[in-house]
Amino acid sequence: MNRDASLRARAKAVIPGGMWGHMNANGLPADYPQFFVQAKGARVTDVDGNEYIDFMCGFGPMILGYKDADVEAAAEAQRGRMDMANGPAEILVELAELLVDTIPAADWAMFSKNGTDATTACLMIARAETRRTKILVAKGAYHGAAPWCTPKPAGTTAEDRAHLIHYTYNDVTSLSAACEQAGSELAGIVVSAFRHDARHDQEMATPEFATAARALADQAGAALILDDVRAGFRIDIGGSWEPLGVRPDLSAWSKALGNGHAIASVTGNDRFRDAAQKIFVTGSFWCGAVSMAAAVATVHKLKRTDAIAHMIRLGEKLRSGVQTQADALGIECRQSGPVQLPMMLFDDDADFAKGNLFTITALRHGVYLHPWHNMFLSAAHTDDDIEIALNATQHGLDAVAQRFPLSI
Amino acid sequence: MNRDASLRARAKAVIPGGMWGHMNANGLPADYPQFFVQAKGARVTDVDGNEYIDFMCGFGPMILGYKDADVEAAAEAQRGRMDMANGPAEILVELAELLVDTIPAADWAMFSKNGTDATTACLMIARAETRRTKILVAKGAYHGAAPWCTPKPAGTTAEDRAHLIHYTYNDVTSLSAACEQAGSELAGIVVSAFRHDARHDQEMATPEFATAARALADQAGAALILDDVRAGFRIDIGGSWEPLGVRPDLSAWSKALGNGHAIASVTGNDRFRDAAQKIFVTGSFWCGAVSMAAAVATVHKLKRTDAIAHMIRLGEKLRSGVQTQADALGIECRQSGPVQLPMMLFDDDADFAKGNLFTITALRHGVYLHPWHNMFLSAAHTDDDIEIALNATQHGLDAVAQRFPLSI
Repeated sequence: MNRDASLRARAKAVIPGGMWGHMNANGLPADYPQFFVQAKGARVTDVDGNEYIDFMCGFGPMILGYKDADVEAAAEAQRGRMDMANGPAEILVELAELLVDTIPAADWAMFSKNGTDATTACLMIARAETRRTKILVAKGAYHGAAPWCTPKPAGTTAEDRAHLIHYTYNDVTSLSAACEQAGSELAGIVVSAFRHDARHDQEMATPEFATAARALADQAGAALILDDVRAGFRIDIGGSWEPLGVRPDLSAWSKALGNGHAIASVTGNDRFRDAAQKIFVTGSFWCGAVSMAAAVATVHKLKRTDAIAHMIRLGEKLRSGVQTQADALGIECRQSGPVQLPMMLFDDDADFAKGNLFTITALRHGVYLHPWHNMFLSAAHTDDDIEIALNATQHGLDAVAQRFPLSI
Repeated sequence: MNRDASLRARAKAVIPGGMWGHMNANGLPADYPQFFVQAKGARVTDVDGNEYIDFMCGFGPMILGYKDADVEAAAEAQRGRMDMANGPAEILVELAELLVDTIPAADWAMFSKNGTDATTACLMIARAETRRTKILVAKGAYHGAAPWCTPKPAGTTAEDRAHLIHYTYNDVTSLSAACEQAGSELAGIVVSAFRHDARHDQEMATPEFATAARALADQAGAALILDDVRAGFRIDIGGSWEPLGVRPDLSAWSKALGNGHAIASVTGNDRFRDAAQKIFVTGSFWCGAVSMAAAVATVHKLKRTDAIAHMIRLGEKLRSGVQTQADALGIECRQSGPVQLPMMLFDDDADFAKGNLFTITALRHGVYLHPWHNMFLSAAHTDDDIEIALNATQHGLDAVAQRFPLSI
């Protein structure tokens, strides 16, 4: 038995199902490791000593590379002074000022620990300001794992979602209908940065959709809430809808903000400042100064380097390389979404048999991909990493071509 | 303007109200600092260079002392390997095994980041197992800051609390009535380790209440849920109701678990294992290995040292010292709850004028107390610290005696 299997057996005894949540490897093909021992730059090493070029980046947080020297130096310096006490450190103010300075839609910022903390606080602020109840969310969109939004119904009640109304992402007619349904009770419209639902092709927000979402929120006096937890800082440093010219009232951030340090944020505009002050949200560790120092260092480094352009350049190289490989084999491999947050899905693959074979083959060639979740590039990936990845995807696509021969 | 005032002014521009949540110094007398610069052992230093012996311990997390050498060494060693990757490190299994080994009621453990994550997951697990909806909570009890439990209504909806039924802590008749009201829909009974509501005298759970809570949960087939977030590891290493001989089905932990590192946990027994596996709760940083290494080191050190006995001994010294001082001045100062989680309130002090004067005077003598929230001792406090504290409380009580002369 290898170390991963041995740890899984021990885990099964003391953790329900052996693991929980989005990092549960039971949802991945067999042979995917559950446990890791090392992470550095764009590479992770599992407990059996296998090293991978990582295209999940810890499901997003790692944007500058694991153990980025600048981020860790800032964290270490803050750690030497204090992390938590009976109030925050000065770095809280610096971080809030930095976000307000960086994000055009932001007049203020608050901080927490989970993306779910941030999305939930956005709903509360929208409701506190408007004194209304209804919240619009896109069908199938992920906004966290609290009872109001967790994708599985177990343990939730009907009342947890009593005031949610669903629309179809990028469908203006559907969004309008949902607004009409909410009527005078519309408190907020929640939009993801783009459609990044697991197991589905990704879709960039269309300019028409973004503009309509803003206009419908304005007409109703409701909040436009951008869930930038997953995409934030990878599309545009000022917010993922900046390229669309549409500014949300409230934004939820987390994942990449602290390059792996646990931090989340709500930013908002002046209209929602009083309401943000009225709600009571807090957590024992929300003032942790080390994670704030990491966030300040992360945002500064993203701003002073070409990190996003670098991720886009490498993402395009990966996407076009895979496309060329798939075309040569006659495989229909659909790549969707921003190249720096790639998604790869196969035609005629409802059970992900092709996707699983593709990714497990790549894994055996030292490249960690995901069969049905969007992936992430980072500033730590190099041209050489993409070459190694393309070698692995070639093996993966070859395996798919061999197991699933063309029927033509 | 001092540095704290200058930072508050800057904060007011970029953070709603200048600060949020339980660490907002606006709820404290003027002169309490909002911002800190240093924390070490039992001492914190504010941004203007004033050092205090800290009896808040960051509102609980600091149980072994800020920057405890053993905890920080363990964290540092883990940090050198990895914090987060695409899955947990081996330390996850070690921590779960350690909690199951340490907590008699626990057959399994899960981890998250906030106390609220843990209490919310307990509700979800109770509901998933029982397929019922109703949850009993004590009037005025604090169980976190999600919409279902946050103490302020702003931003919440009636439906967020549609299935809560309230009882009075330590009142068996009231608890029975609440159970009857829930009827066949009773999913869980939430109890705090003891009554530690802000602004109220604390009350230890009576054996009658604890026994009745267990029996009523059993009769209904519901979960007994112990919220041990605030008190956990300061009363009994195995859980705060161990001395009462009453074991919960599910327990929520956080604060002291990682000695200041951001971590929370749900532990439960085998009856609720399947349900815990069925719910989907997760967060980007919940597998952070550094906080888990800190937790393992914290629990080991609490077990191998006399930390709890030490806190009790010093807590008794503080309590009896203050009592003697108050008696000599004829001041009615009510000290309640466990001595290691002290609460000090004054008679005829609805507006906390006495409490504010008492604590602000102590603050000026280098001792950080709280006028209306329970306080915390730690293993890092020393006999000398208590002597210094008693000097400060003497000054505080003298000030109260002078400003509020006895009317007799």
